[in-house]
Amino acid sequence: MRTIISLDIGGTQLRAAVYQQDRQEPIAQKRIKTRASEPDTLGRLLKLIEDVIPRDGKVDAIGASCPGPVDPHTGVIMFTPNIKEWRDFPFAAKLMKSFGVPTYVDNDANLAGLAEWKFGAARGHHHVLYLTVSTGVGGGVIINDRLLQGSHGLAAELGHTIVQVDGPLCGCGQRGHLEAFSSGTGIERFVADQLKAGRKSVLNPAKRNSAHDISEAAKEGDSLSIEAYHIAGKYLGIGVANFLHVFNPSVVVFGGGVSQSGPLLFDSFNDSLKEHVIHPRYLEGLKIVRAELGDNSGLLGARALAELKLEV
Amino acid sequence: MRTIISLDIGGTQLRAAVYQQDRQEPIAQKRIKTRASEPDTLGRLLKLIEDVIPRDGKVDAIGASCPGPVDPHTGVIMFTPNIKEWRDFPFAAKLMKSFGVPTYVDNDANLAGLAEWKFGAARGHHHVLYLTVSTGVGGGVIINDRLLQGSHGLAAELGHTIVQVDGPLCGCGQRGHLEAFSSGTGIERFVADQLKAGRKSVLNPAKRNSAHDISEAAKEGDSLSIEAYHIAGKYLGIGVANFLHVFNPSVVVFGGGVSQSGPLLFDSFNDSLKEHVIHPRYLEGLKIVRAELGDNSGLLGARALAELKLEV
Repeated sequence: MRTIISLDIGGTQLRAAVYQQDRQEPIAQKRIKTRASEPDTLGRLLKLIEDVIPRDGKVDAIGASCPGPVDPHTGVIMFTPNIKEWRDFPFAAKLMKSFGVPTYVDNDANLAGLAEWKFGAARGHHHVLYLTVSTGVGGGVIINDRLLQGSHGLAAELGHTIVQVDGPLCGCGQRGHLEAFSSGTGIERFVADQLKAGRKSVLNPAKRNSAHDISEAAKEGDSLSIEAYHIAGKYLGIGVANFLHVFNPSVVVFGGGVSQSGPLLFDSFNDSLKEHVIHPRYLEGLKIVRAELGDNSGLLGARALAELKLEV
Repeated sequence: MRTIISLDIGGTQLRAAVYQQDRQEPIAQKRIKTRASEPDTLGRLLKLIEDVIPRDGKVDAIGASCPGPVDPHTGVIMFTPNIKEWRDFPFAAKLMKSFGVPTYVDNDANLAGLAEWKFGAARGHHHVLYLTVSTGVGGGVIINDRLLQGSHGLAAELGHTIVQVDGPLCGCGQRGHLEAFSSGTGIERFVADQLKAGRKSVLNPAKRNSAHDISEAAKEGDSLSIEAYHIAGKYLGIGVANFLHVFNPSVVVFGGGVSQSGPLLFDSFNDSLKEHVIHPRYLEGLKIVRAELGDNSGLLGARALAELKLEV
């Protein structure tokens, strides 16, 4: 029976869980604060792993989910938001040295997609498009039952594809990316710009209005807030139409907080998707569903990655 | 020793070739006019196959390359430009009935990409982005040494991704697709619009100027023609930047007539690609090369498809 240690490295929490192959639930798990501004995040992580490791010590592999660009082929974390001391950080090598078992790492969006395919909303599908829509827009893609990673492991950065040349500024510094339109940050920026230009709204122009504040205002009928989500949904439909033409998946899974906005986002999304697909066959049999795994997608995705690697 | 019959179904020519596994060159080949406006294209194709089939009659599989959307999982050609009588046409089933061997079919751009990976400019790479830039823009993608096909086989329609919402009209009826900017048709449309608006040029506003006419005028220093290719190259760079973020390939292969325009297209392409990539690592070690197989890419791609299917 295989034992996998699974890690979810977040900006606020470090989580570890131990899975055994025949059980969906972990046999042990623990979480601690990341304390990313303090040195030696690695030391805290190693201690956390020791705390959950089975008494007999037998572990077959470690899998880890980490935000930011990661090279899954070398196990090097290029950088990760919050943990500033990890730059070109040989993560897998460090863990292999400490625990003597193969260690696999990939970014959080890829692994959330993998988790939904293996354990969640995309079970049984061979071609999966997973999109997380929260502060950013991230992607995870399964093609022929395999995770899309690319030559340096930098594939599926779906939020950073241009849908409007010279469009609004994205968090990455480029313009016109899908993320600049359809993420929480994009929604907030649109509203802030409109308020600054004197547009009337129930929202206070003097304070920072979050995507959640804006969705609440929209539910009260605020036209600016409704429009902000309408635009986000329209561009999300354009982005997904592009990805249907690129990947032709049989299921689209939405994760992330903004994707829980219901009809406020998805009415315009659905109209836009239908309008921008080049042939109705792309929509034939296509399922569009919500992610099922929530906060556990990182742990389960890291587990799935390690299990897949052991099978090869 | 395996024997494969390979078919390249074009609007003007039907080609057939017989390959044996250990030889790169066909042991027999023949081509005839398609005569697409006349009935019974299938009859002509079957006769062509009979003309090249080895005397001992032993054939292991048939592979076919066909323009337009094809479902490679069912072998049904949804439609193909020129051959109007083939609509939802059960191509593979018809050939299997006639010759009693497995028959595989996919679209011409996918198979040109597969051919370049197996026999041409992308040999040895595991992650390949192939783009044909001619009257349209088509794509073929290899991920982990496997052809990207998608759930209905409609993936990699890379020319039909939006880079500019509400941009110029594409041949497919949608707006702002990469193909509307960077294909020969896109270049021609831009020039025609500018001439109509009274822009000065050595080109005759009263006649239809082809992409080739425009490239000739550009070489003579015509500023409108130079600008037309410059724009095509700029948007091609944007499209390829998007696809690097999506696929993270180690090689980009350009086929098609327009991609032979040299610096006229590729100076602005290179500038644009560098400008729009979100991280320099996408360009690290990336090769950008011209296709090597020319007119034989369809036959060699169909052969590669059949050989891969027999190996599975």
